Amino acid sequence: MTSSSYVSLAPDFLSGKTSPAEFLETCLSKIAASEDVVGAFVTIDIESARRKAEESTARWKAGQPLSAIDGMPVGIKDIIETADMPTGQGSPMWEGFESGRDSATVQALRDAGAIILGKTTTTEFASSPTFARTTNPHDPKRTPGGSSSGSTAAVGAGFVPLALGSQVVGSTLRPSSFCGCVGFKPSTGGINRSGSYDHLSHSCVGVIGTNLEDVWLSAKAIVTRVGGDPGYRGLTGPANLPGAQTPKQLLVLQTDGWSRVTPGARAAFESVIAALAKSGIELIDRSTDAEVEAFERMIEDVRSLSNVILSWENRWPTAGYLRKNAGKVHPVTAARFNEARTLTQNDYAEALAHRQALRDAYALIAAKADGVVTLAATGAAPVGLVSTGDPGFNIPASIIGAPALSLPLLADEGLPLGVQVIGRRDEDAALFGLAAWLTQWHASAIN
Amino acid sequence: MTSSSYVSLAPDFLSGKTSPAEFLETCLSKIAASEDVVGAFVTIDIESARRKAEESTARWKAGQPLSAIDGMPVGIKDIIETADMPTGQGSPMWEGFESGRDSATVQALRDAGAIILGKTTTTEFASSPTFARTTNPHDPKRTPGGSSSGSTAAVGAGFVPLALGSQVVGSTLRPSSFCGCVGFKPSTGGINRSGSYDHLSHSCVGVIGTNLEDVWLSAKAIVTRVGGDPGYRGLTGPANLPGAQTPKQLLVLQTDGWSRVTPGARAAFESVIAALAKSGIELIDRSTDAEVEAFERMIEDVRSLSNVILSWENRWPTAGYLRKNAGKVHPVTAARFNEARTLTQNDYAEALAHRQALRDAYALIAAKADGVVTLAATGAAPVGLVSTGDPGFNIPASIIGAPALSLPLLADEGLPLGVQVIGRRDEDAALFGLAAWLTQWHASAIN
Repeated sequence: MTSSSYVSLAPDFLSGKTSPAEFLETCLSKIAASEDVVGAFVTIDIESARRKAEESTARWKAGQPLSAIDGMPVGIKDIIETADMPTGQGSPMWEGFESGRDSATVQALRDAGAIILGKTTTTEFASSPTFARTTNPHDPKRTPGGSSSGSTAAVGAGFVPLALGSQVVGSTLRPSSFCGCVGFKPSTGGINRSGSYDHLSHSCVGVIGTNLEDVWLSAKAIVTRVGGDPGYRGLTGPANLPGAQTPKQLLVLQTDGWSRVTPGARAAFESVIAALAKSGIELIDRSTDAEVEAFERMIEDVRSLSNVILSWENRWPTAGYLRKNAGKVHPVTAARFNEARTLTQNDYAEALAHRQALRDAYALIAAKADGVVTLAATGAAPVGLVSTGDPGFNIPASIIGAPALSLPLLADEGLPLGVQVIGRRDEDAALFGLAAWLTQWHASAIN
Repeated sequence: MTSSSYVSLAPDFLSGKTSPAEFLETCLSKIAASEDVVGAFVTIDIESARRKAEESTARWKAGQPLSAIDGMPVGIKDIIETADMPTGQGSPMWEGFESGRDSATVQALRDAGAIILGKTTTTEFASSPTFARTTNPHDPKRTPGGSSSGSTAAVGAGFVPLALGSQVVGSTLRPSSFCGCVGFKPSTGGINRSGSYDHLSHSCVGVIGTNLEDVWLSAKAIVTRVGGDPGYRGLTGPANLPGAQTPKQLLVLQTDGWSRVTPGARAAFESVIAALAKSGIELIDRSTDAEVEAFERMIEDVRSLSNVILSWENRWPTAGYLRKNAGKVHPVTAARFNEARTLTQNDYAEALAHRQALRDAYALIAAKADGVVTLAATGAAPVGLVSTGDPGFNIPASIIGAPALSLPLLADEGLPLGVQVIGRRDEDAALFGLAAWLTQWHASAIN
């Protein structure tokens, strides 16, 4: 399910064999064919994109691309500000709102020559309730997942090779799993999220593509220009995709998600684990290591910890939105706010201490192996468009602040399912090296 | 130069002897008399303020104020978002821009019953260059300081008892010194700055008032409702102003600012130091303690460190603003961005490590005493409205992330000058206890 990368087209762009303008037309024809059903975009600016693709084509032909991703059409989750398109946050209250500026990520993408093709749907405020009617590109009866619904649907449908999302619970990896994308959540602070309506303390920019190479080079193109979150160095590593690194040991984590895994997902994951063992990788899990068992127990209830942190942090701006126009706030959001009103600074301080304890515990077990393997979702995208699916497998990496990737290597019910690999905090490049190996190994060992 | 507090009027508000409505009219009459000269406000909404003051008056009379600051008229620095007024960032590009939402601080102030009277002038993007023509309320030929120019001018002029600013270099304490205000910069993360155009990593909300009590209770009113920055517990301490705490030892720091102090400011500070010694306070400084001397040397060049950090962090959104309309960006801002283009992630990472080393070194010397005393500015507000003055005394606490207060206890050229007290990180309440003592002691020992 992986595909060739945009960045690998560089020789053909330079020679004129093909061009960013032609590449864009291929994207536009796919959009014309199925956007009516998929509904990935809130806004799309074809005219501007065509103009920019011509400019990029000229730069490549002159041998002067602005970066490896010059001319790449990109979709931007609609919580991320763009100077030339509205940012509606998936909310009836903010529909059509013009912030008038580019986020750090969008500014950097433009500086790198990428083409901001459009804004993609999101659940309301990148939280669970959704007004969007986006469908899964592999089955329109099913959710694409959320909250980065439109970004993963657009990449999964071939509308764009790359899109930006965000993740604070499971908003990048879960929909990436459902839509068959490579989804990347960096270490906390790894990619500058300034200028996104995305203030939660462990939220991250998500990068979604069809292959590891585009994802890594796009993330690097952003970070070399605007860094990580203020106060963080930001993602580091080589300019090109890190080479495949064969692991010696891998940690296999179940997490809270495992208790709700579908039979198909369980079988798919277990067959990968068995094949890894057969390939000589030493596997460490809760049955073989007491510290891993202790960690699994620590994260069993991680969803309630996540809820306390996010509920406190969402008191702003929710109270102001309810004051402004309660009728335009989803009832689920309003109900959550009412629960959050009972929280105190002390409750939040305790939750932060609990989160730090999990981070410390993870650092200890992550030192045992070359990476963590688990599922990216409990199964294939569920049928229906109201629920965006179960984030049980995604909360741990989000809370811990560790880098994580969903790799579209598995299937459940004949639909995409992601393997999730999780790295050590701030060792994102090593995670890509592991993911590159796993992708190659899977192609040869399984397929 | 300190004055009675708004919050001390509670018994009279409850009894009906006076009311928030009357209090507001006193403010409005001062505004009518001198706002033409001072120019503190960008926007002011008198009609709405009067309506809200009546509502507050009714709540007090019913014995049901929303908080101790119910009915308090407040000015909001124009980088901080307000749902019902534009947020112009002191920039021709953003003049009249409506963000459509309240910042965390404004949301909390409204929830506490405070009245958002207007938006106050700021230098462009809360950085040095200014388009504002605000004057010092004590002498219209002089700057009020910056970047929180309008907030400190409004408080100094008696237009409002309280205003919000921000500080990442010297933007709250320096203008507070110039305008004769109590200015408070909390520990980094202490007051939630979400919804402010204020993304720099050690920037803080500033709280500016005429006395410690109003400043402390307003800060608490905000933090109990919306906490600190996401990921931080936020300011803690008693509901009421911490009681005066007599120090045993005080650290006296010179900092980089001392080399440019005016003769009058030097004399004023030295007389306070002499009086403190005479009062039996043990004073520790670079001449008596080798570690303090080492720290003074570490912070001699702190301005260049500050410049590297802020230049990198300002690459966004400056590049986007220049792309959008370079003619509406101040040439100084554009020139700074051109210098920032040469910086790399590594330069920034080194600067962050350097900052952390300063924080560690400060923690060691701060443990020696009950607080730090220095000046809040190099002298009285300078003549002229182009430069907003020298922030040399303010950068250390900003970089270190320690809480700091400017207390309007001194004079230079017959104009206000602040004593700066700096506390230990996250011990803001103890700093207020020290400041309360210093204010009382100064009134009896000096005046």
